[in-house]
Amino acid sequence: MFNLKKYLSQKQAIIDKMLDEIINHNPSSLSSRIVSAMNHSIMAGGKRLRPILCISACEVVGGSEEKCLTTACAIEMIHTYSLIHDDLPAMDNDDLRRGKPTCHIAFDEATAILSGDALLTLGFQVLSQKSNDLPEEDVVKRLDIIHQIAVAAGYKGMIAGQMLDILSEGKKLELEELKQLHLAKTGALIEASIYSGAVLGGGTESQISKLLEYGQNIGLAFQVTDDILNIEGDSDLMGKSVGTDYNRDKSTYPALIGIAASKQFAATLIDSAVKALEVFDMEAEPLRAIARYVIERKK
Amino acid sequence: MFNLKKYLSQKQAIIDKMLDEIINHNPSSLSSRIVSAMNHSIMAGGKRLRPILCISACEVVGGSEEKCLTTACAIEMIHTYSLIHDDLPAMDNDDLRRGKPTCHIAFDEATAILSGDALLTLGFQVLSQKSNDLPEEDVVKRLDIIHQIAVAAGYKGMIAGQMLDILSEGKKLELEELKQLHLAKTGALIEASIYSGAVLGGGTESQISKLLEYGQNIGLAFQVTDDILNIEGDSDLMGKSVGTDYNRDKSTYPALIGIAASKQFAATLIDSAVKALEVFDMEAEPLRAIARYVIERKK
Repeated sequence: MFNLKKYLSQKQAIIDKMLDEIINHNPSSLSSRIVSAMNHSIMAGGKRLRPILCISACEVVGGSEEKCLTTACAIEMIHTYSLIHDDLPAMDNDDLRRGKPTCHIAFDEATAILSGDALLTLGFQVLSQKSNDLPEEDVVKRLDIIHQIAVAAGYKGMIAGQMLDILSEGKKLELEELKQLHLAKTGALIEASIYSGAVLGGGTESQISKLLEYGQNIGLAFQVTDDILNIEGDSDLMGKSVGTDYNRDKSTYPALIGIAASKQFAATLIDSAVKALEVFDMEAEPLRAIARYVIERKK
Repeated sequence: MFNLKKYLSQKQAIIDKMLDEIINHNPSSLSSRIVSAMNHSIMAGGKRLRPILCISACEVVGGSEEKCLTTACAIEMIHTYSLIHDDLPAMDNDDLRRGKPTCHIAFDEATAILSGDALLTLGFQVLSQKSNDLPEEDVVKRLDIIHQIAVAAGYKGMIAGQMLDILSEGKKLELEELKQLHLAKTGALIEASIYSGAVLGGGTESQISKLLEYGQNIGLAFQVTDDILNIEGDSDLMGKSVGTDYNRDKSTYPALIGIAASKQFAATLIDSAVKALEVFDMEAEPLRAIARYVIERKK
């Protein structure tokens, strides 16, 4: 019987260790405040969903963890930068994240903006790091991965999603518009995480295509569940305030179709995600368990 | 006789056209506000110093403009992102840039933060764009360039410089500290521009080393001249306010060593820059003329 809790905590430990090595290795006296702020936000006990998906996708196609660990960490840096900037007073104005003061509260706005910028840039620095023994075939793959991650994180992906999210406060979106917003804001980087792992692991085109189908479904389910937790969740468990979507008059799945239908929708998405994994055997148990976890989680 | 004015305006036109193509090609309805803000800042009539240096460095080692044009544009995007974020109320709080309202004034803070993020990310997207006919040797070069640009723009380079700049307001820096600040804030990306062009143009190691020496000297001279223009410049010509460094009690070269010694220092740096180009013949005339322009410019 596959033990998800053990799997997640093992992967989290490996990811945390590598993140610490990357950020705190060879420090520069010029940047000590930025490094403190980067550490504050990235070491705040995140779920590491994106890097774990990257590693799991690599492993499901037969690749080893080492093949994609730094890539997985780069993606977590890019995710964390987006959280730091989204929390800023000019954006969502959140004081609490993962149970800790957000970066601009713990430091100040200028430091938060710059440390977000720094994590984004460090992500690309890590992605383009030359391994001495990288075969040329892998150099081509690496360039492709950098490109796909940049597209996913960029102005037609994650950044478009965040802009739309802000612009749509107080407006009632159509269901299809809300879906597009979430696919951009959350789905694109989750898909890019899975794509990167699968490519580095040596997945075939048809394997990668199935994994992306899985990724798109869990990405959307993740966001629907976030919307539900923002209403029903325990703020102590989650380490952030609840009810904020309602207070900001945000369009969410529960606001548009109700809580019961939202839960049903999330469950349907997870069914589709698991179905996309039918081409795999037991080696996809981690991805199947993660899919269920995405809607069953309490934080 | 080499005509710098004509050279600069020809290069500017080519860069502007390519930037327009990259940003406005294939627009997405999801991101129209972000794209407007990106255009507002990047099409504001900048000098395009970094992309021109990239192209000139490529040409001086015998490469063609086409080899590095998109790379040059990516660097300009990364430079423009840094200006947008530096201008924010939480940072330098500037209302005017290149004679136009800064991004957060023309739009709002959230849009300015996100469009800066978008330009940075698009820079890496463009740098990792696959050309169908890229030989494998060039794929390795491209990965190296992405890495060097990320290091230069990152938390030990440009971002460290901006953080130090903010932290040092009201403090009197030592001359050596001020130099380190400027090498990080301005010098690193200028050097990376030259490095990228020289590598893509097929420069030898010793050529690249000389060009970097040139770059480090003009980078610092550029900043010293900026400090001088902030006192003596014509705000109409420059399109931004003067006297702001003094008002913010910033450490600058003129504040530390006086205006006359600052001008002398800048001239010495330019002499060193031009001396580093001795290994080249007439083909380095553009770089020599740019070096002189760096300290003679009025804006």
